[in-house]
Amino acid sequence: MRISELSSRTGVPIATIKYYLREGLLPAGAAVTATRADYGAEHERRLALVRALIDVVGLSVQQSRVVVGLLDASEGPLFETLGRAISALPPAVAPSADGEYPRAKAVLERLGQVYDPRFTAVAQLERALDAADAAGLPIDDERIDVYGRHVGAIADFDVSRVPADPAEAVAYAVLGTAVYEPVLLALRRLGHQDRASRSLRG
Amino acid sequence: MRISELSSRTGVPIATIKYYLREGLLPAGAAVTATRADYGAEHERRLALVRALIDVVGLSVQQSRVVVGLLDASEGPLFETLGRAISALPPAVAPSADGEYPRAKAVLERLGQVYDPRFTAVAQLERALDAADAAGLPIDDERIDVYGRHVGAIADFDVSRVPADPAEAVAYAVLGTAVYEPVLLALRRLGHQDRASRSLRG
Repeated sequence: MRISELSSRTGVPIATIKYYLREGLLPAGAAVTATRADYGAEHERRLALVRALIDVVGLSVQQSRVVVGLLDASEGPLFETLGRAISALPPAVAPSADGEYPRAKAVLERLGQVYDPRFTAVAQLERALDAADAAGLPIDDERIDVYGRHVGAIADFDVSRVPADPAEAVAYAVLGTAVYEPVLLALRRLGHQDRASRSLRG
Repeated sequence: MRISELSSRTGVPIATIKYYLREGLLPAGAAVTATRADYGAEHERRLALVRALIDVVGLSVQQSRVVVGLLDASEGPLFETLGRAISALPPAVAPSADGEYPRAKAVLERLGQVYDPRFTAVAQLERALDAADAAGLPIDDERIDVYGRHVGAIADFDVSRVPADPAEAVAYAVLGTAVYEPVLLALRRLGHQDRASRSLRG
């Protein structure tokens, strides 16, 4: 199909599609003439994915390019690809000056989990714990235990569903980290509203 | 203290503090002379909160102003303040054309939760379910049940901790929605890395 049809089928303006092509978010179409390219179903799927990453997951164009790039060139062990995907996702957190994360370490030890300061999410956890303090809502051990137990059960389920096919496993690890997060956050917010509408309203 | 001391104590540049003052994120200091104002501990706390909302929660200056504004002028029932806080937090999702969210409705009915299309998080859930489809990772009933059960338990815990003092309850509802989300996401990512480092590495 022409770019105009790709645009009308996906609802993404032609100028935006051209921008994504320039930024490497979308592979080039097959050249038909010097000024015309042909696009297929894979472009339509990729556009839907890019819009989801930008609009719902909240990634920037640059972050989306990194995530999409991991799908296109997934080399090396799945574990390392997962680490690269997490590093590409917000929040962007600078490493600590000394490379240590004492509060995150204490939380992970309490939960019996691996502490590896090279994991980007360790720095994210440290900063998130700091932010809760800054908001006057420090996280105590009881909250750590409840959050850790239930989030751990969710992670167990996620890992139990990793596909056997290597390419599908990469897509699941990279995209599943990103696209299921907004679902979990929406469910928590709706859980609060559900409980509040039963007990706090009025 | 002078603005220069407030800056050095918080690490926030003077120009940024002046910007927050202009944008209403920080209350004005007490005027000492026509060109000098005095700042106190409450300004230091508020600056730490604003930085946490922007850097860790990922809010824009405009979104942070709405959240902070809810703390400053918390009128009406806690339930409605909670709803306004959720509306101010990302992802920003436009309401559907017909005001209905059939997929979110099916999920909430499956989980036995209130479905009220006026809740912003209902539109967020609908879009998040769409995004998972767009990524080729649609959410099946088993995933809904596991996520719903464990996120529901987290929401129960959160609600059980609402402070009795009305002003503290508002701060908890507004800020707890925002600042605990990055903690939960970091824990999930670390849960994946913990499981993966035990089983998938290599």
